[in-house]
Amino acid sequence: MDGERKISSNTLYRGRIINLKVDSVILPSGQKTTREVVEHAPAIAVLATDPGGRILLVRQNRYPVGEALLEVPAGLVEPGENARETAVRELREETGYLPRHMEEVLRFYTSPGFSTELIILFLATDCEYAPLKQDFDENIELEPVDAGSVPEYLSKGLVRDAKTLAALCWYLYHKTV
Amino acid sequence: MDGERKISSNTLYRGRIINLKVDSVILPSGQKTTREVVEHAPAIAVLATDPGGRILLVRQNRYPVGEALLEVPAGLVEPGENARETAVRELREETGYLPRHMEEVLRFYTSPGFSTELIILFLATDCEYAPLKQDFDENIELEPVDAGSVPEYLSKGLVRDAKTLAALCWYLYHKTV
Repeated sequence: MDGERKISSNTLYRGRIINLKVDSVILPSGQKTTREVVEHAPAIAVLATDPGGRILLVRQNRYPVGEALLEVPAGLVEPGENARETAVRELREETGYLPRHMEEVLRFYTSPGFSTELIILFLATDCEYAPLKQDFDENIELEPVDAGSVPEYLSKGLVRDAKTLAALCWYLYHKTV
Repeated sequence: MDGERKISSNTLYRGRIINLKVDSVILPSGQKTTREVVEHAPAIAVLATDPGGRILLVRQNRYPVGEALLEVPAGLVEPGENARETAVRELREETGYLPRHMEEVLRFYTSPGFSTELIILFLATDCEYAPLKQDFDENIELEPVDAGSVPEYLSKGLVRDAKTLAALCWYLYHKTV
């Protein structure tokens, strides 16, 4: 499939977790248009279970949507870290658990129509309690969920975060096949 | 869970599909910080099958990530439309199929850490061929996938769009229980 060719790029904002640029592009048809691009650092998310087999979800206040959402632990890959190191750090900060085993299971763009954000989802198993301190501006509470309750959480609309839905549906499917 | 209280809000950009504002907020701890918010219209996505039972996916060029991604049909709710009307229109524009039955199955924020974007996912069944013209600046190709091939598509990393992963994993799970 033919792509879109950039003519010019104009960065309008450089911020804390995002930058905004507006590019002029030529479509494969030859027509011109503009594309708005929110640049965002790569991020990780972790689907983990505690020693009791509960899924380690967290409730996090999300200012943009005005809700405290139930989510898999997640965070931005910091300079000098690789994605796996970020996943271990974020899981310890947000849930207190350190995974002894971790594997990448999915990799996806959260909103590729306007954002560059990529999330790498890890499955973490064999976790032990070894907490780290949370970031000062995060307001996060651990809220573990029994694996058997996940279908009910989904059908009742209690999970409203895309990465968490992808992770939990992936988990349910793999647990049943 | 206590929320964050807005002190001031500064809209830095009003664009085609997004606006950007930066708000000053007070955290529940009493500390001040800023929150970057990308405002985005609500959107829909549709998980649909054709009369042969294939899942109606589309390949769409996504300028921000520089890839043509395999996705469920999706689009923005236009002024004067409700989400269900958008879903029918987008499915016809992007795949040519008109659903006779449609139900909401999931509703989620794509990236609630910085964006207001909400996606309502519909399951469309009993589809007949009745196409509409595509938007001028969309470069979309229909790429139906056999339901039986979906697990292989996921394990090979051929689906890299969050809403589509959520939709397909939801579908696989519901097909197996």
